[in-house]
Amino acid sequence: MTGKLYGVGIGPGDPKLMTLKAKEVLESADIIAVPVKAPGEESRALSIVQPAVNLTGKEIMPVVFTMEHSVSRRKACREQAAGQLMEKLDLGKNVAMIVLGDISVYSTYHLAFKFIREKGYRTENIPGISAFSGGAALAQISLVEGSQNMMVLSSLKGTEVLETALKVCDNIVVMKAGSSMAQINKILKEQGLEDRTVVLSNIGMADEYIGPPEEDREYGYFTTLIIKKGGL
Amino acid sequence: MTGKLYGVGIGPGDPKLMTLKAKEVLESADIIAVPVKAPGEESRALSIVQPAVNLTGKEIMPVVFTMEHSVSRRKACREQAAGQLMEKLDLGKNVAMIVLGDISVYSTYHLAFKFIREKGYRTENIPGISAFSGGAALAQISLVEGSQNMMVLSSLKGTEVLETALKVCDNIVVMKAGSSMAQINKILKEQGLEDRTVVLSNIGMADEYIGPPEEDREYGYFTTLIIKKGGL
Repeated sequence: MTGKLYGVGIGPGDPKLMTLKAKEVLESADIIAVPVKAPGEESRALSIVQPAVNLTGKEIMPVVFTMEHSVSRRKACREQAAGQLMEKLDLGKNVAMIVLGDISVYSTYHLAFKFIREKGYRTENIPGISAFSGGAALAQISLVEGSQNMMVLSSLKGTEVLETALKVCDNIVVMKAGSSMAQINKILKEQGLEDRTVVLSNIGMADEYIGPPEEDREYGYFTTLIIKKGGL
Repeated sequence: MTGKLYGVGIGPGDPKLMTLKAKEVLESADIIAVPVKAPGEESRALSIVQPAVNLTGKEIMPVVFTMEHSVSRRKACREQAAGQLMEKLDLGKNVAMIVLGDISVYSTYHLAFKFIREKGYRTENIPGISAFSGGAALAQISLVEGSQNMMVLSSLKGTEVLETALKVCDNIVVMKAGSSMAQINKILKEQGLEDRTVVLSNIGMADEYIGPPEEDREYGYFTTLIIKKGGL
């Protein structure tokens, strides 16, 4: 029989924010698949799993998902990743791919997963704590309450979508905000929202920052913004 | 020294979807505070925790958060809840309040928590898997990918906010959708989105349903909709 593919969200960074199910699935899998952007790259996800999960005797298999701009290169890379996973499934091995945060929120996993699922393999997805849930808990604020709504967006699309979100939403989460912080800060200042915003940057890393947006700060890739129009 | 207050998100229903941290905090706390809507009510949250956490020797303390329409009754109830928690903290007891899903998403906890935090007590919030993350994983779909955005809303506010969300968002999550399913179904039909919607209703309970919206079905309180405009 062919193996089963598990997509496992391992949470925002603290190994203890993995679920009991994630730990169980990773400890029972034959192979841990680890997405990387380039061959030989160190995996942050793997370093988060290691203190909480017994990986003795397991094959650790890096799977490349390129972040290059070329759409055709990305597509070829995903198909190669899917092929690499299916080869192991065909050998009867259970494979668990780990991703940061939640498996369903901006996760590279789905790119290969859709392809594999269409081929009829057995699959199961394990949810994880997203960066915004982890961040809100750390900052001890609510994300959304009562009859409010919340928009989650990635800054990659530019600031237009943020301006729309600020018109129609009570709470806005901006993920991967690091590279757009200068533009975002300008909008927050114009709208008087600086003191209603929490920045969570590189949580659990040496340059961790939790606090209001600051203009002169360098923000890392793992930067999440929580904007609460009604106040923190 | 006064005790510490923990807000603990216990996830969407499967005890194994609790985090390692939630289990650890609940096992070390002196008192487990359990929100109920009325005195004597059975707690779904407590029944989820029991199979995964050793609660031997712990005090289980129901805390009433009324859902009555009267704003003054609700406010009085929250202050009473906060007082009940602070009384235990003043005795030096560590108190962990459990809530379904994520502690920061539509959680009653924050209503009492803000009040307690302002008084200067030590507090810590532990995130949990939200109903929408759990639901997306179960349905094996992504919530949001690439440069898309996602809106999370509660149906309590009526359908106007859903119509706005359908204009500006790629993916929409409607929580507590049960009582509004007739109105929501009408909008989905008008916009041809029925086959791009997954309904997750009473997951883990006897009348669990995961599938497309169906007009003649009765939907329970714990109903979450995931609408993906670009397709499932």
